[in-house]
Amino acid sequence: NMIKVAVVGGEGIGPEVTAQSRRVLDWFAAKRGAPMTLREAQYGLIPYLATGKVLPEDTAEAMDEADAILWGATGGPETKEVPAAARKAGSLLGLRSKYDLYANLRPIMASPALAASAPLKAEVLDGVDFVIIRELTSGIYFGEPRGIETLPDGQRRGFNTEQYTTNQIRRVARSAFELARTRRGKVCSVDKANVLETSVVWREEVIALHRDEFSDVELTHLYVDNAAMQIVREPRQFDVMVTGNIFGDILSDCAAMASGSLGMLPSASLGPVDRYGRRKALYEPVHGSAPDIAGRGIANPLGSILSVAMMLRLTLNRPDDADLLEKAVQTALASGARTADIAEAGTKKLSTVEMGDAVLSA
Amino acid sequence: NMIKVAVVGGEGIGPEVTAQSRRVLDWFAAKRGAPMTLREAQYGLIPYLATGKVLPEDTAEAMDEADAILWGATGGPETKEVPAAARKAGSLLGLRSKYDLYANLRPIMASPALAASAPLKAEVLDGVDFVIIRELTSGIYFGEPRGIETLPDGQRRGFNTEQYTTNQIRRVARSAFELARTRRGKVCSVDKANVLETSVVWREEVIALHRDEFSDVELTHLYVDNAAMQIVREPRQFDVMVTGNIFGDILSDCAAMASGSLGMLPSASLGPVDRYGRRKALYEPVHGSAPDIAGRGIANPLGSILSVAMMLRLTLNRPDDADLLEKAVQTALASGARTADIAEAGTKKLSTVEMGDAVLSA
Ligand SMILES: CC(C)[C@H](C(=O)O)[C@@H](O)C(=O)O
Ligand SMILES: CC(C)[C@H](C(=O)O)[C@@H](O)C(=O)O
Repeated sequence: NMIKVAVVGGEGIGPEVTAQSRRVLDWFAAKRGAPMTLREAQYGLIPYLATGKVLPEDTAEAMDEADAILWGATGGPETKEVPAAARKAGSLLGLRSKYDLYANLRPIMASPALAASAPLKAEVLDGVDFVIIRELTSGIYFGEPRGIETLPDGQRRGFNTEQYTTNQIRRVARSAFELARTRRGKVCSVDKANVLETSVVWREEVIALHRDEFSDVELTHLYVDNAAMQIVREPRQFDVMVTGNIFGDILSDCAAMASGSLGMLPSASLGPVDRYGRRKALYEPVHGSAPDIAGRGIANPLGSILSVAMMLRLTLNRPDDADLLEKAVQTALASGARTADIAEAGTKKLSTVEMGDAVLSA
Repeated sequence: NMIKVAVVGGEGIGPEVTAQSRRVLDWFAAKRGAPMTLREAQYGLIPYLATGKVLPEDTAEAMDEADAILWGATGGPETKEVPAAARKAGSLLGLRSKYDLYANLRPIMASPALAASAPLKAEVLDGVDFVIIRELTSGIYFGEPRGIETLPDGQRRGFNTEQYTTNQIRRVARSAFELARTRRGKVCSVDKANVLETSVVWREEVIALHRDEFSDVELTHLYVDNAAMQIVREPRQFDVMVTGNIFGDILSDCAAMASGSLGMLPSASLGPVDRYGRRKALYEPVHGSAPDIAGRGIANPLGSILSVAMMLRLTLNRPDDADLLEKAVQTALASGARTADIAEAGTKKLSTVEMGDAVLSA
């Protein structure tokens, strides 16, 4: 029962960091017998120049057949060399939608080793350990109608539709409740139900699912503006937070940065469970393609490496291997291994490859 | 040429903090000859119990005829004793809309005196001084169509419309550019133009207005998720930030909390300039009604008092008086005056009234 993994480094620092997590994957296959076959594929500017497509057929096929995709990063619409239409045809948003990757898990963890580089005070960050689940395939990102129109008086008007249905809400809320059961048993649902009808339905459906199936889990609710405050005021209070697409986009980036570990945070985007019990998943670091440092070999590979840990836990169902890898990362950090983004002034900075070495030897 | 001020304490701690800013207003009228007439009016639960309306006619009239409204706080839809329909009939959202208060100014300032109570590190906060301008009367808060429907398959669907037109964008962007000219000359516009058409129009209109009338101002753009990160990573980089209604709601609360001065931050909501050059305005502290501490006389009145400083500057056009008041607040803080929310453990805590005294004597 081999697990198929597609390894897609993408653009900017994506290929550099993914090369290190690839080494980690190889190690788990060789040394711990993790049953996987790996297939590398290209995405972005380079295949675009060769084939006219950011997502060439070979890559699409590798991703289609994969159980798990290890994704690096993409430059997104800013990359000047690729026309917007070509970008759009193979966009990450399109892939999320194609594979119905509706549950985006973003763990937020404060690493004591990194307290010095975090914007939040150490006493605020101490012990922070929560997961934001962002709904990833609905909401205002995909709602119709959307567009730009010219009004009779000559003004232009841009419009988008925020929307959620019962099923879209319940399936992501279910992911949150199930995850909470494996953790500290607390879910905080975030919405703007004092203003938006979409949020009223969101809140009511979360409450109904909780009442019917998850009353053992503690459920609370926050308005999104208050949630943004609580994430910087007292992030320790959270265990699992669940919210819609755009709110999750903003809150998870805010929380990641506040924790000081943006370069180190992994994510998993999960699809529905099929009739064989399989669940397609895309794993990627939270950071982006960072064009300013691409090609210099100094990017932090820990976000990508910890995404492999999530893959070991969630797709390969090997929690012991996931723990082993997470501990190796902590050991490397505790021994002082730092890439430039997390190094204190005047201390030694490892290259991307050296950080990979540090984790592998740990 | 008397300026008409309506003083509406509202609910929770609103009346307590407003009583102190009322004393400050009286002082400026008596001692500095600030030309104002004050009219107090009630809002919320108390008038509801007496008249069946949270916004009784007398209050509506006082606000209608006022040049400036000094607003306290409202409990909002959570207050159990008032039915939702009665709430809605006199809601703050409705007032924003009625008076077309489209430009919501929220200064974010880090007070060195409060570094100990801020979640962000002192070195991150040092020197932070920027203003978030939130568009307050359009966007997803007011967009149509909106509602909750039942789908053919029995699911429910909630939907809202995010939308912005040329004029809605340009007038709030104009406020931002004009404000930047009186400050450090920098505007950062925040949107999600990589995903939302509404944001595409937002960005294009901001760019066009900048090119046509404000090319002396430095203009930059951030996606909203990145803006949330930058606000906690390096808030010093901002001078004036301008954004839409829901993004501004989230970002301004996040920034207020991160700065550690939530209880101390003022805000101003400005309407259009009329043909006599007047501009209706509502001034209110950023904090809410805080029902948990209401009636105990311990709330921090500085957010409301500093809102009076904004009124002196923006409505009364008395910048010297505004400076005087802001300096008095800094003097009071520097001498150690602290309400419970900003006091370090083990230090003396002033009551709401004592903090009012401290500012008045300074
Ligand atoms: C690039 C962009 C479309 C994307 C998003 O908003 O979802 C990114 O910010 C993310 O969070 O993965
Ligand atoms: C109470 C609520 C409707 C309001 C808003 O979202 O505008 C509040 O959060 C605010 O920011 O003034």
